[in-house]
Amino acid sequence: MQAKKPADSYTVMTQMVLPNDTNGLYNLRGGKSLHWMDLATAIVAQKHSERVSVTASVDNVSFRHPIKVGDVVTIKAKITRAFSTSMEVKAEVWAENIPNRRKVKSNEAYFTFVALNDLGEPERVPEVEPETEEEKDDFARALRRRELRLILAGKKQPGDSHELKKLFTEK
Amino acid sequence: MQAKKPADSYTVMTQMVLPNDTNGLYNLRGGKSLHWMDLATAIVAQKHSERVSVTASVDNVSFRHPIKVGDVVTIKAKITRAFSTSMEVKAEVWAENIPNRRKVKSNEAYFTFVALNDLGEPERVPEVEPETEEEKDDFARALRRRELRLILAGKKQPGDSHELKKLFTEK
Amino acid sequence: MQAKKPADSYTVMTQMVLPNDTNGLYNLRGGKSLHWMDLATAIVAQKHSERVSVTASVDNVSFRHPIKVGDVVTIKAKITRAFSTSMEVKAEVWAENIPNRRKVKSNEAYFTFVALNDLGEPERVPEVEPETEEEKDDFARALRRRELRLILAGKKQPGDSHELKKLFTEK
Amino acid sequence: MQAKKPADSYTVMTQMVLPNDTNGLYNLRGGKSLHWMDLATAIVAQKHSERVSVTASVDNVSFRHPIKVGDVVTIKAKITRAFSTSMEVKAEVWAENIPNRRKVKSNEAYFTFVALNDLGEPERVPEVEPETEEEKDDFARALRRRELRLILAGKKQPGDSHELKKLFTEK
Amino acid sequence: MQAKKPADSYTVMTQMVLPNDTNGLYNLRGGKSLHWMDLATAIVAQKHSERVSVTASVDNVSFRHPIKVGDVVTIKAKITRAFSTSMEVKAEVWAENIPNRRKVKSNEAYFTFVALNDLGEPERVPEVEPETEEEKDDFARALRRRELRLILAGKKQPGDSHELKKLFTEK
Amino acid sequence: MQAKKPADSYTVMTQMVLPNDTNGLYNLRGGKSLHWMDLATAIVAQKHSERVSVTASVDNVSFRHPIKVGDVVTIKAKITRAFSTSMEVKAEVWAENIPNRRKVKSNEAYFTFVALNDLGEPERVPEVEPETEEEKDDFARALRRRELRLILAGKKQPGDSHELKKLFTEK
Repeated sequence: MQAKKPADSYTVMTQMVLPNDTNGLYNLRGGKSLHWMDLATAIVAQKHSERVSVTASVDNVSFRHPIKVGDVVTIKAKITRAFSTSMEVKAEVWAENIPNRRKVKSNEAYFTFVALNDLGEPERVPEVEPETEEEKDDFARALRRRELRLILAGKKQPGDSHELKKLFTEK
Repeated sequence: MQAKKPADSYTVMTQMVLPNDTNGLYNLRGGKSLHWMDLATAIVAQKHSERVSVTASVDNVSFRHPIKVGDVVTIKAKITRAFSTSMEVKAEVWAENIPNRRKVKSNEAYFTFVALNDLGEPERVPEVEPETEEEKDDFARALRRRELRLILAGKKQPGDSHELKKLFTEK
Repeated sequence: MQAKKPADSYTVMTQMVLPNDTNGLYNLRGGKSLHWMDLATAIVAQKHSERVSVTASVDNVSFRHPIKVGDVVTIKAKITRAFSTSMEVKAEVWAENIPNRRKVKSNEAYFTFVALNDLGEPERVPEVEPETEEEKDDFARALRRRELRLILAGKKQPGDSHELKKLFTEK
Repeated sequence: MQAKKPADSYTVMTQMVLPNDTNGLYNLRGGKSLHWMDLATAIVAQKHSERVSVTASVDNVSFRHPIKVGDVVTIKAKITRAFSTSMEVKAEVWAENIPNRRKVKSNEAYFTFVALNDLGEPERVPEVEPETEEEKDDFARALRRRELRLILAGKKQPGDSHELKKLFTEK
Repeated sequence: MQAKKPADSYTVMTQMVLPNDTNGLYNLRGGKSLHWMDLATAIVAQKHSERVSVTASVDNVSFRHPIKVGDVVTIKAKITRAFSTSMEVKAEVWAENIPNRRKVKSNEAYFTFVALNDLGEPERVPEVEPETEEEKDDFARALRRRELRLILAGKKQPGDSHELKKLFTEK
Repeated sequence: MQAKKPADSYTVMTQMVLPNDTNGLYNLRGGKSLHWMDLATAIVAQKHSERVSVTASVDNVSFRHPIKVGDVVTIKAKITRAFSTSMEVKAEVWAENIPNRRKVKSNEAYFTFVALNDLGEPERVPEVEPETEEEKDDFARALRRRELRLILAGKKQPGDSHELKKLFTEK
């Protein structure tokens, strides 16, 4: 199975914030934003694996800037790394208020997906071959995000976590 | 401001999985599930603070069991701890296939909210007074989840993290 | 087939009133409220019968209090009595405006469902065994509600209605 | 205020049954059907009163025939009678399966609405002047439906019900 | 196969403009209006052909009058002519603001549909037999609309267009 | 007011076809596709004009290839030319079936928008400065599309149409 580049499955999704997507202050609900991120990253995972792919987890997400009704939301989703049958996809969320000419990066998140075959069983996916500096950096750091994910899910002991120590010392 | 009990704002939300909520395998999308969890926990935060409350973050969420179209999803949301103007709310997601008599806990997640006053500024919220053993445990561990959140958001240095060491040594 | 208690299938549904659910005065539409009641009571019928259950009828419903956009609606649904292949389920609708600390019982309604087997034919359901005083009262009065339903559907003559006379004399 | 004819506000609504409108057997949910009836009858009430009108109640509704996904649903809504500030509107629901050339009357229902002025207070509405035999019949029988509604809402004693006696003796 | 009259498949659809259907000025979006027109005209094509029918094209549509949130939209859809396996259906859109007693024809459009059999292949449909003057006029002019459609789709050379010359000379 | 390039407001929208977006053959409805095109092109018009922009018209659209449930739809929207207060935006619709590795251009369409100021009045917009060969070609041909639009809307006589003659003679 041949490795594929992040650019091969890169996906951009645009949404307009409608009244029903907002809370009592006419800000986009965090949950609706997560829903859109999940759709955009699922498309990336399906393009990379050429399989139906299901969400396995989403990492910690912070919502830094309020997004208002009428704003245009752009979600840029790119695969960072593959691990046998799973894929990590990064979503960056940008919010743009057109009449005010304001455009901010609202937040980012890492989703993981598992590719399934026609019987619903996990299936191997192509490797990821990063090209740009940012893609290489995302590829390298994917290991420690994966370790943290396994520890938080109770599937790995913190003591065994070589990569995670870097997260707690470097960044 | 008087402390309030988790039971005072406890909220149960029930949803039926409809075709549009699913992916190509007729499983509930992870993103739709996050959307419902956000709605249920936002109601808890609003009941506890008696204020409009906006999502500040969601912690790492794993989706362990597929939930099928037609299943009944029950989300049990309960506040765990308050920190000045923010609140951590825990969501437990149960999926029930009625004709098959199968009921499983699909996943759980911690959402944090900030209470806002009428000017949209953060506002102090009541303390949480846990009653049951589980509530006391959730209250105690909320500190280290908060530290991890701050480190992951780049707002705290891992070296300053007293509570988080416990996460990496105890559990 | 063993009798089951109302508590076994008791279901609570929580919804937040969004802009699209309202009319020109930003009040929840009656029809949307009926839609939510039908979903909540259908879940109760399915839990009690462990079968797909379809709505057979809904009794007279009055909408007493306006429910506003942003309010939290809680629907408490409980089975009252079973009649061979059909079940009567009671829905109580509560509306809560959190910033104003106002919580009112908006209305209540009785829905009836028929349980269907895999061929789509009506199937016997377990008896209901009421426990509390309110449940026993709802169980007893279910007979006359059923008679009124049959008369209004033209399936029974008013003269044959022993129970209904009580409704017109007692309450 | 001049009386108006039922034909002046008569409204036909057509809907196609989509997957999300159905239950586990791909039948239209009763609650969705009630939602559409409420929309169609609200339009009639607003046309007759030339005011925003809110749902006050819906009478007993029976669902006699299953309506399948893909069917075309036609709702014919017509005012029957006005009572000072309230209006009774009748909805007839027809379901049509086009490839099978099957068209059935699925059910009918009576909704009542109250017209509101700009302050949200009840406002007088024009009288209804029935023209056809069916309209005159609906107009005449509206009195006893109203009495039954008041009794079921606990606002009138059964003993005072002159019209209702006819319902229990004639039909 | 017997010819059918336009009245046999005539369909009226009523919709209320809800907040999510609007743009930043609370006007109905053009795209939502096209969605409703497509639903209404598809029902007409299915009634005429007694087959599942899919949209083949829509002609040039102008949106002349803004339609506001809360307005009642009525779409009147009628078949104009059939061409072997395809049907042209005309949609007229009326918008009504009830409290202001304003009713305007917002726009009209011609949709074409192809009838499909159970294998998804095009299938012959009945001829259209126009009755009224307007129907006869729509029937006659359908030829040149069809020619323009074929030219715009690059399936016919402008030089071969006998009917279209009339459009450019008569009207 | 400075001219802007098509690349400055270029917008890509991605959507996944869900069950409710389809007709009885699980193909994407034409009307839903038009709805998405309208959203994507409206965002382009707002980015170019930095104003709220409303749909004025859509040109003839043909639906050439069926798009199935589960397919990923990509809409690429780019401004072609501005005319004082109006803008023409081109939408190209691509459909991708990922497991089958099939990607086709389904159709394209030209939408026109009018930019409005805060009073809801038309407002001048920047000129368009095409860069690529395709953009220059779209810019040049926009004149004759505009003429055809004006003739079809009855606002111009065919005899006055210099550009349109080219459409009927060249292509």
